[in-house]
Amino acid sequence: MSHIDDVKDYLVALQNRICAGLEQLDGKAQFARDAWERPGGGGGESRIMTDGGVFEQAGVSFSHVFGDQMPASATKTRPELAGKHFQAVGVSLVLHPHNPYIPTTHANLRFFTAGERRPVWWFGGGFDLTPYYPFHEDVLHWHETARAACEPFGAELYPRYKEWCDKYFYLKHRDETRGVGGLFFDDVNTQGFDKSFAFLQSVGDSFLRGYRPIVEKRIAHPFGDRQRNFQLYRRGRYVEFNLLYDRGTLFGLQSGGRTESILMSLPPQVRWTYNWHPEPGSAEETLYRDYLRPRDWLGELNGWQSLSSPYGNVQRLETRYEAPCPGLKKLRSAKPRGSWRRCTLR
Amino acid sequence: MSHIDDVKDYLVALQNRICAGLEQLDGKAQFARDAWERPGGGGGESRIMTDGGVFEQAGVSFSHVFGDQMPASATKTRPELAGKHFQAVGVSLVLHPHNPYIPTTHANLRFFTAGERRPVWWFGGGFDLTPYYPFHEDVLHWHETARAACEPFGAELYPRYKEWCDKYFYLKHRDETRGVGGLFFDDVNTQGFDKSFAFLQSVGDSFLRGYRPIVEKRIAHPFGDRQRNFQLYRRGRYVEFNLLYDRGTLFGLQSGGRTESILMSLPPQVRWTYNWHPEPGSAEETLYRDYLRPRDWLGELNGWQSLSSPYGNVQRLETRYEAPCPGLKKLRSAKPRGSWRRCTLR
Repeated sequence: MSHIDDVKDYLVALQNRICAGLEQLDGKAQFARDAWERPGGGGGESRIMTDGGVFEQAGVSFSHVFGDQMPASATKTRPELAGKHFQAVGVSLVLHPHNPYIPTTHANLRFFTAGERRPVWWFGGGFDLTPYYPFHEDVLHWHETARAACEPFGAELYPRYKEWCDKYFYLKHRDETRGVGGLFFDDVNTQGFDKSFAFLQSVGDSFLRGYRPIVEKRIAHPFGDRQRNFQLYRRGRYVEFNLLYDRGTLFGLQSGGRTESILMSLPPQVRWTYNWHPEPGSAEETLYRDYLRPRDWLGELNGWQSLSSPYGNVQRLETRYEAPCPGLKKLRSAKPRGSWRRCTLR
Repeated sequence: MSHIDDVKDYLVALQNRICAGLEQLDGKAQFARDAWERPGGGGGESRIMTDGGVFEQAGVSFSHVFGDQMPASATKTRPELAGKHFQAVGVSLVLHPHNPYIPTTHANLRFFTAGERRPVWWFGGGFDLTPYYPFHEDVLHWHETARAACEPFGAELYPRYKEWCDKYFYLKHRDETRGVGGLFFDDVNTQGFDKSFAFLQSVGDSFLRGYRPIVEKRIAHPFGDRQRNFQLYRRGRYVEFNLLYDRGTLFGLQSGGRTESILMSLPPQVRWTYNWHPEPGSAEETLYRDYLRPRDWLGELNGWQSLSSPYGNVQRLETRYEAPCPGLKKLRSAKPRGSWRRCTLR
């Protein structure tokens, strides 16, 4: 079996697992399935849940596309591959919950191979979290999960892919990050196929581990029109990002991909309000002030953390947030020029 | 007084006239004014009306920006001007009515000048109409008005700019036009300044003449949730166009323009629904089938029309739509390869 079959099997199984997990979490709606074929070669299956108990809209897509002419825009960093035979498999999801206290989230996992003799291949993907009314402990849990997924493959990966995520999910015209980030990576192949694939699986497997506990904690949080309207307004930023910046969206649309599967990421209801600004001191201002900029979430804790901390652990850490860290020694930064750091108890 | 001052005076007065006309039409809300300065040079005034009697949101912006470094993206067809001193004045408007039977509309009028000794200058602009539940007579009136605005400057202008409009306001990923079009032009200067400016004024002056009668006719048309939801859904296409394709929007955002003034064009409320299709035989399907593709609206009438027809005239013409045109002689086409044609009674 070729490499791509292994990856495809994993991704198809992951789509099933994630959809099953989300249905369980939702408790009301189920995913509808939409299989499609791509005229140029390949196809996929989009799964969509609407009007659920938790999710206003949830889309989880699998696709496997191939062709004889690798589009130039897919190989920005590898112009020599343009025009060659290529295959791409991927899973992509965007979840839009009803409750504004539950964050929107996105994940993507993809594998590319180009050329037929000695093909070039690489993995890409990641996940990010977009809260409306953030809870600091949720953000810490999310990043703990991201770091734990990366850790077995090198301590430098989390800070590198966390920073890449902050840079990628950035709305320049708003000077805001899309949310609180997570992981973003591309061109992953330097550790060889087996280890790179294991890394992809580690990230894929950790998605529900990161997101589910946050949903479970916030699912019953009461909200009213104010929170709903703020959610609808902030969803506008999601639309702006996806249509103005997102490479996957733009590439998909420009290359004749299936429009409905690509734009499944757009929220079901959205508002734009001219020149809206949060009231000083409001919960909405907290989002802008404290969460829509790159932050070293885990490093700021200034305390030792279990890399595989269960969610409960993060809560305990939360109580120590910004407290001094007695008897601590700063460890060498995994990323020398960055602000990310980790320290440990003596 | 320099050329740009003349144009600026006209555009400022036009903004005032259009806002006054829209307030009168709305009957309830008034425009709020937001003056702003551009750090790089210049500024503008955005006027916005929200929650009006007719308009859910109406934005009419004036701007006058200048600088020493003409952005390369502003001069696609004139690379030799990149980096030169430039000035640009413009009025831009987008109107989003409450009632789904009233079309959304957009207009833009702009003047560019680049270089200091023997500056190069040109006009650009146009207007287009985006109905949800179109009335054929409204579309005819709109295009009659567009043609009448162009007519004094050459019979070839309307078909040329009408076709350009169809091509410009086209959503490739949907294979749909944004609406029923109108006029779109750029690089207008071949007839000399006075005549080119007069053309711009003719287009600017005709905007309310085209739009107001349509609003007045549809203002009391009853609608329910079905029509409202379809309007919100179709507004998604407006967002898609503006963020994916619109040169003005993308250039404005990329060049550090005032985000809120640029994105004032986005509708206040929008829906996306996965893989939605209109029911066969429904009013919604009529829009897709008959209106979201380039059509030779006036040529199809196959009958003589007064170029300066009052609105009532169009209604009478409507009754003759697709009827044979006895005793007619086809005139030479103003645009030889096109499908546009005009015929006259013997």
